[in-house]
Amino acid sequence: MTQDHFSFGLWTVGWQAVDPFGTATRPPMDPVHAVHRLAELGAWGVSFHDDDLIPFGSDDTARDKHIERFRKALAETGLVVPMATTNLFTHPVFKDGGLTSNDRSVRRFALRKVMRNMDLAASLGARTYVMWGGREGSETDAAKDVKAALDRYREGVDLLAQYIVDSGYDLRIALEPKPNEPRGDILLPTIGHALGFIAELEHRDLVGLNPEVGHEQMAGLNFVHGIGQALWSGKLFHIDLNGQRGPRYDQDLIFGHGDLLSAFFLVDLLENGGYDGPRHFDYKPLRTEDEDGVWASAAANMRTYRILRERAAAFRADPEVQEALRVARLDELAKPTLGDGETLADLKQDRTAFEEFDPDKAAERGAGFVVLSQLALEHLLGSRG
Amino acid sequence: MTQDHFSFGLWTVGWQAVDPFGTATRPPMDPVHAVHRLAELGAWGVSFHDDDLIPFGSDDTARDKHIERFRKALAETGLVVPMATTNLFTHPVFKDGGLTSNDRSVRRFALRKVMRNMDLAASLGARTYVMWGGREGSETDAAKDVKAALDRYREGVDLLAQYIVDSGYDLRIALEPKPNEPRGDILLPTIGHALGFIAELEHRDLVGLNPEVGHEQMAGLNFVHGIGQALWSGKLFHIDLNGQRGPRYDQDLIFGHGDLLSAFFLVDLLENGGYDGPRHFDYKPLRTEDEDGVWASAAANMRTYRILRERAAAFRADPEVQEALRVARLDELAKPTLGDGETLADLKQDRTAFEEFDPDKAAERGAGFVVLSQLALEHLLGSRG
Amino acid sequence: MTQDHFSFGLWTVGWQAVDPFGTATRPPMDPVHAVHRLAELGAWGVSFHDDDLIPFGSDDTARDKHIERFRKALAETGLVVPMATTNLFTHPVFKDGGLTSNDRSVRRFALRKVMRNMDLAASLGARTYVMWGGREGSETDAAKDVKAALDRYREGVDLLAQYIVDSGYDLRIALEPKPNEPRGDILLPTIGHALGFIAELEHRDLVGLNPEVGHEQMAGLNFVHGIGQALWSGKLFHIDLNGQRGPRYDQDLIFGHGDLLSAFFLVDLLENGGYDGPRHFDYKPLRTEDEDGVWASAAANMRTYRILRERAAAFRADPEVQEALRVARLDELAKPTLGDGETLADLKQDRTAFEEFDPDKAAERGAGFVVLSQLALEHLLGSRG
Amino acid sequence: MTQDHFSFGLWTVGWQAVDPFGTATRPPMDPVHAVHRLAELGAWGVSFHDDDLIPFGSDDTARDKHIERFRKALAETGLVVPMATTNLFTHPVFKDGGLTSNDRSVRRFALRKVMRNMDLAASLGARTYVMWGGREGSETDAAKDVKAALDRYREGVDLLAQYIVDSGYDLRIALEPKPNEPRGDILLPTIGHALGFIAELEHRDLVGLNPEVGHEQMAGLNFVHGIGQALWSGKLFHIDLNGQRGPRYDQDLIFGHGDLLSAFFLVDLLENGGYDGPRHFDYKPLRTEDEDGVWASAAANMRTYRILRERAAAFRADPEVQEALRVARLDELAKPTLGDGETLADLKQDRTAFEEFDPDKAAERGAGFVVLSQLALEHLLGSRG
Repeated sequence: MTQDHFSFGLWTVGWQAVDPFGTATRPPMDPVHAVHRLAELGAWGVSFHDDDLIPFGSDDTARDKHIERFRKALAETGLVVPMATTNLFTHPVFKDGGLTSNDRSVRRFALRKVMRNMDLAASLGARTYVMWGGREGSETDAAKDVKAALDRYREGVDLLAQYIVDSGYDLRIALEPKPNEPRGDILLPTIGHALGFIAELEHRDLVGLNPEVGHEQMAGLNFVHGIGQALWSGKLFHIDLNGQRGPRYDQDLIFGHGDLLSAFFLVDLLENGGYDGPRHFDYKPLRTEDEDGVWASAAANMRTYRILRERAAAFRADPEVQEALRVARLDELAKPTLGDGETLADLKQDRTAFEEFDPDKAAERGAGFVVLSQLALEHLLGSRG
Repeated sequence: MTQDHFSFGLWTVGWQAVDPFGTATRPPMDPVHAVHRLAELGAWGVSFHDDDLIPFGSDDTARDKHIERFRKALAETGLVVPMATTNLFTHPVFKDGGLTSNDRSVRRFALRKVMRNMDLAASLGARTYVMWGGREGSETDAAKDVKAALDRYREGVDLLAQYIVDSGYDLRIALEPKPNEPRGDILLPTIGHALGFIAELEHRDLVGLNPEVGHEQMAGLNFVHGIGQALWSGKLFHIDLNGQRGPRYDQDLIFGHGDLLSAFFLVDLLENGGYDGPRHFDYKPLRTEDEDGVWASAAANMRTYRILRERAAAFRADPEVQEALRVARLDELAKPTLGDGETLADLKQDRTAFEEFDPDKAAERGAGFVVLSQLALEHLLGSRG
Repeated sequence: MTQDHFSFGLWTVGWQAVDPFGTATRPPMDPVHAVHRLAELGAWGVSFHDDDLIPFGSDDTARDKHIERFRKALAETGLVVPMATTNLFTHPVFKDGGLTSNDRSVRRFALRKVMRNMDLAASLGARTYVMWGGREGSETDAAKDVKAALDRYREGVDLLAQYIVDSGYDLRIALEPKPNEPRGDILLPTIGHALGFIAELEHRDLVGLNPEVGHEQMAGLNFVHGIGQALWSGKLFHIDLNGQRGPRYDQDLIFGHGDLLSAFFLVDLLENGGYDGPRHFDYKPLRTEDEDGVWASAAANMRTYRILRERAAAFRADPEVQEALRVARLDELAKPTLGDGETLADLKQDRTAFEEFDPDKAAERGAGFVVLSQLALEHLLGSRG
Repeated sequence: MTQDHFSFGLWTVGWQAVDPFGTATRPPMDPVHAVHRLAELGAWGVSFHDDDLIPFGSDDTARDKHIERFRKALAETGLVVPMATTNLFTHPVFKDGGLTSNDRSVRRFALRKVMRNMDLAASLGARTYVMWGGREGSETDAAKDVKAALDRYREGVDLLAQYIVDSGYDLRIALEPKPNEPRGDILLPTIGHALGFIAELEHRDLVGLNPEVGHEQMAGLNFVHGIGQALWSGKLFHIDLNGQRGPRYDQDLIFGHGDLLSAFFLVDLLENGGYDGPRHFDYKPLRTEDEDGVWASAAANMRTYRILRERAAAFRADPEVQEALRVARLDELAKPTLGDGETLADLKQDRTAFEEFDPDKAAERGAGFVVLSQLALEHLLGSRG
């Protein structure tokens, strides 16, 4: 099962279910317990925020003890730590952001907090360091000069990348976009904005993305398209799988329990599109559930992924699908628009391309997309062989 | 009034008000008439799609005549043509896209159609060539391989940029993002995705953005934040001003008739943030209106912009606002997080940054954002002197 | 197959694919041809707007001929007409509404247009008369006094219900809610608003709902919940099945090609919740398709419904599901909160209900919703037996 | 100032700013302190949840003391209690709802909790009892039988209305709709659904609405339209004023700090549309603020309302506006569609209504909505006299 590369955040199964209108419905969960249970369920890896493992404000002795217990659990279970990240959002000091807080002392504190946890992440063998800037944003445009804030954001990310280089760590940074919540508007709200930001970094090679299903869907965007662009840019460093039901609060449902058709095409793309990183579930077990429900939900994420993977494989293998793809001219999309060796000047001289091209005639042919999409749906539903 | 640099698309005042459920409520408008009326209302420029000026399929004689009449109207009125663009969406041949159609012959036709209109645009003195890929997208993830489609999109945009270079034109390309409509999902759905795409182009210096207010707001995104990032990236080449009431169909309301607070902060940013291009209105006069309503709506766009510009100036000049900005530490956000000459190693040694930093204490201070945002609101409402 | 009670609007398969940015990609379709092809595909019924069958402005002779040809096609194929409706939205005269236009002469014309088509509907054996007020609304709150508009709406609907009574027709009216498009905001935007409106009618018994999947989902609302409330109120007179991908323009996708999980629970509710009306598909074949694609899409609607119906039946029959429903206490929800014969005074005296009730203890038990929802997902995916 | 009838919930200024990703940034606020400060700022009334005043689980002695201190503060300041409500959402016992929990013992506990606080509300002179069923809902359609849940909801609301009658209280119940958050989907998601529900109650006369600006806007609905329908139905018993920026998490911004144009038309409707209840602010001071920011935000709500009220009055008084309203035929909308004494049969005989009506001609006239909406905008901006 570990070859599935399924990983979970400690904060997912450990979520106590505090929400904006309610207090905890579940007791705190010992990270060691989480590691053992996840291993039993067949997970391969576990990820963490610094404060998930070591309560904020712990002294060095307490910190060492927390880390030691965690290492031991990893050793006992064989679970790996593919990714780690920093909590720059829970404590009130981050109320206006970490790396882009208007308060410079907060920005300096935030940098140090990240650096410290990067040391731990590297020592635990993590290869990806996620940065979700959930508090980097504003509720009123008067309060944040976006250009200045992006200057600070770039300064911060470049410094942290430099820290990785200076420290000789085998880590890459993965930015996690989100449009809003907990801030009214968050900087780097989508996969696209983060790609545009990375292009302005000095250390752009070390920095990529950790997109989350629900975050793009909160903006009504097509997650599969976003992942397609991230892969195309060579920037899909990590991924957060979960479910969401469109533009509303961040639901963090079980993977597949939101937009199921999109989940199918996502798995198809991940399995066949060149991504070889962890399948990381970043979800929240429903607040209505007790600990049994927590583990049922963890298992459900993995089971759903596996079913969708099988369905995607059958879809790709079906000769009828392959024929429908040809009819829909997916192969033709893969061919350059200019011919081999053709120049712009050649194109301009090609009368068949324009002067003699009959657009009305060309428009008559149907695209064949209905047949293709219904085949996909029926494969997803398991109703074809 | 021309110093305002207000421009309008021919297709805006000329919109006949066909919508998905209704036929035209207004007769076609002669572009020459539009130019004269816009000039009388105080506009400075006019923009066009090739097919707005020259009906699709016109022969060369008819084409020349349409162009000649238009040139004459420009000469008579003094209106300039700051921008032009191509219609790659109305004719059925573009039903699956222009530069990314699965049909290669359509892609070739689209390139030629753009090149031809670039020639005209350059001859009319345009400096910006907008590309809105409204049909570049899909309704089902099965029908479009996003990575292949982005390969074709990059090929197309780079070829067209090369055409500008080869032709010696003083033109830059401005991509216009939109999340959906008329396609289910459109490639380059937001400002961010377009910035990320541009970073992968060979001719990335020649290519920037033409963001539209309503397009970002259809994804629930903060347009002022988006424009801030576009400016920060040096990519705000042009802008489309209008109004929208959140995620729904593309409304193209009069500027200010959607999210008014955001319109205020947008004008504040455009006037004070380093943008010196046209203030281009890309809106649709309500379908309920006759031609009088069309001109009333054109005037309303300009009048609203001017009022907001006055209010933004008063906001910035108000000493109480300046004090509130200081209290909210906007000046501190503009200062680098590391000190002059400070290194990462220095930061790591600075005990005041971490070991001796008291986060609880630092968190106590209020950010002062409420006072600032209420001052902005009251300036917008004209209720402060 | 006719026992499935699948019906289609003439305007669905006949849609020429004009959208806000493009002209028709398909030629007009003769209603007689549509009837024959739908019958061959296994449909049971066909519905129409007056103008689908008889072009707006036809004289009486032409009208009679259109009707005669249609009757003949019905007779030849055995297709029934379960529902009809009026086009009060395409012609420019309805640009500000039909029954709530600010122009009283338009309201009178609209009433007459509906009455005339009710005569035809009754003569063709229709039992449901749908009213979608797509133009009843506004783009600016200044232009429509909502209370006055609702007065006119009530006047109109009550008059038309009276017309049914006076004419002795076996018809009921079904209102179709929609939040926006083509108007900025439409009156009666959701199932709920229409239910609230019906409660104020004189003829409230004759008036119910025709909810459409995509219309509720354009407001981000749970369609299954809406249908549940409509059934609970005894007002689900008819239903429009299609697909939508959240808040954006009205997509009218094939049923199931939007929110698939919701489609599953919808079919489960329709099949087991007491609805016995038509399964009416109100969708648009993708604009990319030719006529072959049109028929493929019509067949896809029916096939998807059938698959979901099988899956819902298997879900309900599965003993593990039945146990999970018990654990989740669905049976307890069906039991009144007061006991048999218990009064409020009794409840107030019941110390076990409050004084001796231990909320912390009661909160400990998990709700069992994760297990249940994963069982549903796996039945939907056909991965359980 | 008290004639303004501005009221605030204790939970608004007292919000400690816990959000889904962060802990409290402000200390608890003593309700007595809140009452005194609100009075100083010019508020007229204060509202509360039982648990705002009396911590959940307090024994009778503690409870009495809390109430006594509160009464004293009211007496000292002259503040009134126009409304009270019950917290059926914070404690874990309500994780699956109060009146519609699948757990019957929870439903019984919830009823008793409401009854107890109704006693207190009545004794403090409240006239409105708000019921927000924030936990009445589900995250998966498998877990909640909506028809059964609405049976329980109706049972609960009717029982509580009966309790008011039996107790001789001068109270009315006001249901508060919300589409989602904290549940995935909440029952009675909009004004409309609540109106439809009320129509099915035995005590429908005692039950109305408490709509909240942001809640409707979370579903992308026009709040002014919703309030129009609520007034039309005679059901606007109370109102919650705040701000929201479209479909996303529940922001509870200061009134006017969301959709400002809509806020203007709302105030216009409330002041001129027959509502005479409290102007109740249900908002959250930004989490970034300290206590000074809290009071600045409370004052901002009231100040913004007053400015908008002035602008609405000037708009209505402007002769140019009055003329524009006539041109837009708002007066004609107020006139019945049938003439005085006219019958359906008469209408059917009126050839001018149909046979001789020229729709093309009637369609030519513009609706005059642009002029009207721009006048409104300019009045809002204070730029007309």
